[in-house]
Amino acid sequence: MTTFKIIFAYDGAGFVGWQRQAAGTSIQGLLEDALRELDERDVTVTGAGRTDAGVHALGQVASFSLARAMAPGVLVRAMNARLPDAIRVLAATEAPAAFHARFDARKKTYRYRIWNGDVMSPFERAQAWHVIGALDVEQMAAAARLIEGRHDFAAFQGAGTTTRTTEREVFSSSVTQSKTECGQLLVYEITGDGFLRHMVRTIVGTLVEIGRGRQSAAWMGEVVASRDRARAGPTAPAAGLFLAGVEYD
Amino acid sequence: MTTFKIIFAYDGAGFVGWQRQAAGTSIQGLLEDALRELDERDVTVTGAGRTDAGVHALGQVASFSLARAMAPGVLVRAMNARLPDAIRVLAATEAPAAFHARFDARKKTYRYRIWNGDVMSPFERAQAWHVIGALDVEQMAAAARLIEGRHDFAAFQGAGTTTRTTEREVFSSSVTQSKTECGQLLVYEITGDGFLRHMVRTIVGTLVEIGRGRQSAAWMGEVVASRDRARAGPTAPAAGLFLAGVEYD
Repeated sequence: MTTFKIIFAYDGAGFVGWQRQAAGTSIQGLLEDALRELDERDVTVTGAGRTDAGVHALGQVASFSLARAMAPGVLVRAMNARLPDAIRVLAATEAPAAFHARFDARKKTYRYRIWNGDVMSPFERAQAWHVIGALDVEQMAAAARLIEGRHDFAAFQGAGTTTRTTEREVFSSSVTQSKTECGQLLVYEITGDGFLRHMVRTIVGTLVEIGRGRQSAAWMGEVVASRDRARAGPTAPAAGLFLAGVEYD
Repeated sequence: MTTFKIIFAYDGAGFVGWQRQAAGTSIQGLLEDALRELDERDVTVTGAGRTDAGVHALGQVASFSLARAMAPGVLVRAMNARLPDAIRVLAATEAPAAFHARFDARKKTYRYRIWNGDVMSPFERAQAWHVIGALDVEQMAAAARLIEGRHDFAAFQGAGTTTRTTEREVFSSSVTQSKTECGQLLVYEITGDGFLRHMVRTIVGTLVEIGRGRQSAAWMGEVVASRDRARAGPTAPAAGLFLAGVEYD
């Protein structure tokens, strides 16, 4: 048996998310189907991040073991030949037998895209949140920085989820802006040692409340300290979220 | 009757192109359907550029006349409310009664996107041509410059089309490059006083032959001079092409 680590990208529109489910097409299901055909046996694929329906990935990582010997370059081509073009394997490497894409991940980076303008760009409709009205980007950037450090992020955890601990370390949290003729694109990027369910999308929903001037930048610190989901902003839509990359030791 | 000029964008994937056809959904058909509902009569919409199936627009322009009085801002919102989100009206202005979006256009700019890397990005699959293998971008840029000026572009005209003249003036023709981790994106941009059918896509097909090293940059000049479609490169796929903007006096 050989363990592989693959890096892959997907356009999450039209999928039920990472995890295999009773109904609908999942990213995990498509990868496992492709590998079953290649290895002529059932293969379990472990993803670094379990993205929700509509969430995209630029550099998602997964691990699995194959009985059949295969050069990594051949594996990349064989998988891409069996996957829809909404999912592309970018690279594969052999990994130690014990490698686990989720448990061994040390840092993950997510990116969230906001299209801020009167009219939504047709090319952004499945890849950004459309926010109409003025946004104070400086205030959003100041609030984003307050997320950095080790905190209890319970205020940003989706309802109905349980985890051992809601403490996470955020290494960087920033907002950048690029203007176009028809509006501006805001990109929020966050790197941390782990993320709670809906954490990034709820941070973004909170940042937009601040950008709209409904709350001050300092309010972000109060929301974190409250550990109360009811205090945070709404959960931003899935379409704007991208798992940008995963780092290992 | 009031004549309007609108600027609009569309994601051309899934449409049969600009022009209304017997079968399939066209951009023109969707705009005319929306305006019939608004004006309670048949409205004919004239587009500046008749884009083919799968071709996109960032700043297409159209003209039409309405019997009902309507403020331009209200028209934008009313049209967007009646159009699928793959088409968005960005702006509307009142125009002189004689304004004709196609005949009055003085300059048009097209952009063509090439994704150059081993694996196609899932986010580029409907908006770029996937070209595998090394491309000499300097040679492509040098060849692109040879297109500038007034020339007979018969060598780049799609088969089975007839036009009064195949002479056109190209004001600028350039290639730019941006590198990413997984490959590079090349953008070809051309501004001219008018374009023959498939002209931009055939220029791009010819540029890629040069980029692959199959021909020298100077060959572009020979192809233009030949006025022979058989001498030019293949027609690049529709998905990479964008009508970027149209200028009027």
